[in-house]
Amino acid sequence: MIIVTRNSVTGTEQQQVIELLQRLAGSQRPISAITMQERGVITIDGNVLDAQAQAALSLHSAVERIVSTGTPYQLVSRAFQSEDSIVAVGDLPGSQPVTIGGSAPVVIAGPCAVESREQLMEIARAVKDAGAQVLRGGAFKPRTSPYQFQGLGIEGLQLLAEAREETGLPVITEVMEPEMVDVVAQYADVLQIGSRNMQNFPLLRAAGSHPSRRPVMLKRGLASTIDEWLLAAEYIVAAGNPNVILCERGIRSFDTHTRNLLDLACVPLLHELTHLPVIVDPSHATGRRELVPTMSRAAIAAGAHGLILETHTDPNSALCDGRQSITPAQLRTIMQETRLVAQIMSDAAVLDYVA
Amino acid sequence: MIIVTRNSVTGTEQQQVIELLQRLAGSQRPISAITMQERGVITIDGNVLDAQAQAALSLHSAVERIVSTGTPYQLVSRAFQSEDSIVAVGDLPGSQPVTIGGSAPVVIAGPCAVESREQLMEIARAVKDAGAQVLRGGAFKPRTSPYQFQGLGIEGLQLLAEAREETGLPVITEVMEPEMVDVVAQYADVLQIGSRNMQNFPLLRAAGSHPSRRPVMLKRGLASTIDEWLLAAEYIVAAGNPNVILCERGIRSFDTHTRNLLDLACVPLLHELTHLPVIVDPSHATGRRELVPTMSRAAIAAGAHGLILETHTDPNSALCDGRQSITPAQLRTIMQETRLVAQIMSDAAVLDYVA
Amino acid sequence: MIIVTRNSVTGTEQQQVIELLQRLAGSQRPISAITMQERGVITIDGNVLDAQAQAALSLHSAVERIVSTGTPYQLVSRAFQSEDSIVAVGDLPGSQPVTIGGSAPVVIAGPCAVESREQLMEIARAVKDAGAQVLRGGAFKPRTSPYQFQGLGIEGLQLLAEAREETGLPVITEVMEPEMVDVVAQYADVLQIGSRNMQNFPLLRAAGSHPSRRPVMLKRGLASTIDEWLLAAEYIVAAGNPNVILCERGIRSFDTHTRNLLDLACVPLLHELTHLPVIVDPSHATGRRELVPTMSRAAIAAGAHGLILETHTDPNSALCDGRQSITPAQLRTIMQETRLVAQIMSDAAVLDYVA
Amino acid sequence: MIIVTRNSVTGTEQQQVIELLQRLAGSQRPISAITMQERGVITIDGNVLDAQAQAALSLHSAVERIVSTGTPYQLVSRAFQSEDSIVAVGDLPGSQPVTIGGSAPVVIAGPCAVESREQLMEIARAVKDAGAQVLRGGAFKPRTSPYQFQGLGIEGLQLLAEAREETGLPVITEVMEPEMVDVVAQYADVLQIGSRNMQNFPLLRAAGSHPSRRPVMLKRGLASTIDEWLLAAEYIVAAGNPNVILCERGIRSFDTHTRNLLDLACVPLLHELTHLPVIVDPSHATGRRELVPTMSRAAIAAGAHGLILETHTDPNSALCDGRQSITPAQLRTIMQETRLVAQIMSDAAVLDYVA
Repeated sequence: MIIVTRNSVTGTEQQQVIELLQRLAGSQRPISAITMQERGVITIDGNVLDAQAQAALSLHSAVERIVSTGTPYQLVSRAFQSEDSIVAVGDLPGSQPVTIGGSAPVVIAGPCAVESREQLMEIARAVKDAGAQVLRGGAFKPRTSPYQFQGLGIEGLQLLAEAREETGLPVITEVMEPEMVDVVAQYADVLQIGSRNMQNFPLLRAAGSHPSRRPVMLKRGLASTIDEWLLAAEYIVAAGNPNVILCERGIRSFDTHTRNLLDLACVPLLHELTHLPVIVDPSHATGRRELVPTMSRAAIAAGAHGLILETHTDPNSALCDGRQSITPAQLRTIMQETRLVAQIMSDAAVLDYVA
Repeated sequence: MIIVTRNSVTGTEQQQVIELLQRLAGSQRPISAITMQERGVITIDGNVLDAQAQAALSLHSAVERIVSTGTPYQLVSRAFQSEDSIVAVGDLPGSQPVTIGGSAPVVIAGPCAVESREQLMEIARAVKDAGAQVLRGGAFKPRTSPYQFQGLGIEGLQLLAEAREETGLPVITEVMEPEMVDVVAQYADVLQIGSRNMQNFPLLRAAGSHPSRRPVMLKRGLASTIDEWLLAAEYIVAAGNPNVILCERGIRSFDTHTRNLLDLACVPLLHELTHLPVIVDPSHATGRRELVPTMSRAAIAAGAHGLILETHTDPNSALCDGRQSITPAQLRTIMQETRLVAQIMSDAAVLDYVA
Repeated sequence: MIIVTRNSVTGTEQQQVIELLQRLAGSQRPISAITMQERGVITIDGNVLDAQAQAALSLHSAVERIVSTGTPYQLVSRAFQSEDSIVAVGDLPGSQPVTIGGSAPVVIAGPCAVESREQLMEIARAVKDAGAQVLRGGAFKPRTSPYQFQGLGIEGLQLLAEAREETGLPVITEVMEPEMVDVVAQYADVLQIGSRNMQNFPLLRAAGSHPSRRPVMLKRGLASTIDEWLLAAEYIVAAGNPNVILCERGIRSFDTHTRNLLDLACVPLLHELTHLPVIVDPSHATGRRELVPTMSRAAIAAGAHGLILETHTDPNSALCDGRQSITPAQLRTIMQETRLVAQIMSDAAVLDYVA
Repeated sequence: MIIVTRNSVTGTEQQQVIELLQRLAGSQRPISAITMQERGVITIDGNVLDAQAQAALSLHSAVERIVSTGTPYQLVSRAFQSEDSIVAVGDLPGSQPVTIGGSAPVVIAGPCAVESREQLMEIARAVKDAGAQVLRGGAFKPRTSPYQFQGLGIEGLQLLAEAREETGLPVITEVMEPEMVDVVAQYADVLQIGSRNMQNFPLLRAAGSHPSRRPVMLKRGLASTIDEWLLAAEYIVAAGNPNVILCERGIRSFDTHTRNLLDLACVPLLHELTHLPVIVDPSHATGRRELVPTMSRAAIAAGAHGLILETHTDPNSALCDGRQSITPAQLRTIMQETRLVAQIMSDAAVLDYVA
């Protein structure tokens, strides 16, 4: 249940509403109280208040409206916000800003890991030339084995900042622990939270409550349901940061031909359930370079707001994930196809309307 | 391992090769000996002959070439046949023939089950008008519970034949047991083998050895790997019928928002592994009408040779699967989008080539 | 909904009840009408009659009681029959009968496939000596590839009958198609329906309606839910054969260390939901000989009524599944442990009662 | 590859070996250097040194032996340490120590969450009386929704310490972020790392490098493979803490009757692959109280070194997971059965040996 307070209410009035809600709901229920679009937004689990208690709340003079979403996730639900969220990316100096969530798909490209200045600069220039709008690159790498390359750390962040400076591309990189949110947010335009951390709740809260409100790209967990994913996004928004981008990257399956199983049907399904933008990562989903161009096309056709593509100028010598990295030339082709399919999609939107 | 014999060889020579192969391989190994494109094609499990035995075989005067596919499936492999198979559909009188496997996607539409003459004729006309090229409709229905509607049986087949007569649409319908292949092949232009029967080997053999060589649409099993699926197709081809169409219809998953999990990445993957055409069934894959148009578009973008779409003029009163049935108006829209995306795909083929 | 008629009712009265039910439910709903324990038992899908219609039915003089099970499966539900079903095995001449479903676990052992008279006789004697009560052996083998050994067919059935004659062990073997039920029932004491055929509905019906009422061991499908499995069992019972034994054999999963994923928790769950006996196949579930003894012990501890164990005197040269076949010596150990754990279970039953 | 140095080597010599290894392997490969059983143990990914480089290393005077495990996980592998690890639990003052990993199964019991002093003390006394040896209780709770009860935090830790003081039971509780390891280690005898954090690598490293070397119970991820799980354990050990206990708690599946799918076959499989102790959590695995006693019995029969059981004196009013919590009376019965089955297991060990 979401209580939106009038935009004229004072802090004291807001606090009164929260206290009233606490009394009505019992004390141990977590309550989120944040500001969205200049209004106070107070949220609590949907099932705790009976009709009478809701009526009591709605009579309070500071309350503008009460929304019952009917779902466990609330602030991220389409029931709460019917129009699409559009997330502005690139608020750090030197970034050429871009928005994710509108009708023009955004392509994020770059290496799995930042390996060296030379490698990163070469790839950054190449993906910029190919038309990508955001640069990806891992500085802190979550690796299955402790004996695999773990990333360059802070040095990697600094190199990403250099690459932004030169190319103007906003950068996205992964953050793996709450206490690193602050330093990563100094360097990165978008914080990535990876699949393995989708339910790392302290990390979600830290990314949600960071004063920068830096956009967060939240990848789907290896075997997470849609509802669990949206609830993870809810953690970030309920902590105060509405700038969340969902990223489908394949889920675990039983076939060994591909690394994961790309669930493209989740894209239109998410458009029904949430107002958050959704992008697709065909690199991790398939794990095979040769499937990436086709599945990029299909992802855009399914309604994705963008793609994130592992790209390397020399995939075969990449320190990680070379098998799934495309070349800048392939990226260029994907950019062209993406634009063509997105054009169809605009037409399709008209057609859907007719139907 | 596949031994192709010269097209001039006699039955006796062919038999000699088989006997030589049996001696070399040991007697209990199944051997398939069929005719494809006017040549004898003899197949045996790839791993049973050593280099010396293969050399001995290749010296036989009747042997044109020996192909080692390197995969457990053989006749269906791309290694054996590099060009795409194109399956001709509609050899029964009254059918307007269509081919599946070429660059123009084919749309199969119709009700889950044949319920009555009125229902079928109304829908058949509507899907014809909307542009579909093949009519689907279940006469024998595999239902999870014995207390659910099981289909009209032979009467359903007769109604399908009537619908073909009136509309010219070739018809596809499911066959569930070997002894029914003959009767279904009298009425249907394409035999459907459903997910639950993907590894019903006697049925695969019966559909493969039927003298009509009627095309078989083989749906992927509920949790079958790509290799198991291709080996099921191999059963049909090795029994003498090369006219197999694969149909992805979603696999089992853990999320309850959709009925199954559509694995679109299997489409480009199959194009790598096999020469058989691949179509997609977004109706069963998603189980939700509102996701069908988007996933149809995505399927074509992923390279599918066609779609099979449950369509009903009154979905809410359908005897089965109404929840996932689209209306003829939605079908018409999907047809338009399909053509647009297929057009992009031709351009894309050029782009892919450039890359 | 199940309508049990009085044991004195005539065929005419029984027919009247069916016709009344058909009128009340509408004509296209399948109705099962069989005899169980000398009473007529008429079943229809639970959700089709309203309260008024049910009341009308219950007033009919031939009706003894009406049971609403609240589940889609009905005759197999614990709600319909609270006491455990005990299935008598071994009605063919020469068999030493055994019952499955009581407190003493039954062990079924033998080779994956019948390969030759010598192989079968040697193994049959060995498993008899080790204490097994039923002999397994495949005559018709469902193999993933058409180029794998497919079994000896009828000859295999004859060898199984010979082995029974010599050892007194009842035999179980797989039947793969409806038209073979009759011939397999001539030779086998128990018909096995394999995982790949769990939803081969014509086969289920054929096994259910065979006049021999030969017991059927129904293996769980590769990715079937518990409800789908029970509905498959319902097909057999609703066709007239109450002698069904369920067999858990592992389901598909993502880890490649084992062939399948053994779901032992389904054993106590099934005991809650159904009165049918449940046995476990650790050979196919794990695919690894060295895990079979431990998982046999665990299966009995979980409440399984028996085990089916692939056993071979020379596993490494078996024509199929040698990797998962145990030796007769291992079988002997498993028999001992099984008895010890079953003894604990009797004590445990007391303990459970106390709790 | 693991290099064990002689127990007389100085820090300087140890450092020489590491530098030599770095030179041979290239600089970016992570190397772990820790002390185990008074010897230096240096580990690096197995595949990076060729035979010549290994020979060079083995000639160094400080090197005692080099072990190639042949698996990606190394220090936790059975190939490196053939005897079972036995983890001592209860090093905080007031604890009655217990060992996990030996032949006597250990039972951990207590509430899902610490809710209040009264609740915890009542349950702690009850599980102590019932025979449990370790007390569980969540202070920091990873909850799917931000609006669910999140635990009492530090206050919960203090209550656990009080409960230990009164009952002598060592306590286990979850830690969710690296920076909390220190404070949790002050209060808890065992650190629990939950399923959602199995691949939270900073947390694994923090738990591994904490100077207390407090035992860590590492739960299997929701859909993690056995190899991924063992590599997660390797992170902890490679950071310096060999006291790791693995806990199977069910993996994600498609059936909705149970919360997760308990993979008991992983227990004997893990005994093959690793020397670490393995315990089982039937509460989370099944999610249903009525299945817990049976699956506890089966887990011990499968060779588990212990159980962790959610227990509540009033399950129906528990703030979380009441549905799967057993009562102290049920716990008492499970303790008795566990002892009986463990007794059989000792006999079984003899029987296995004979076989």
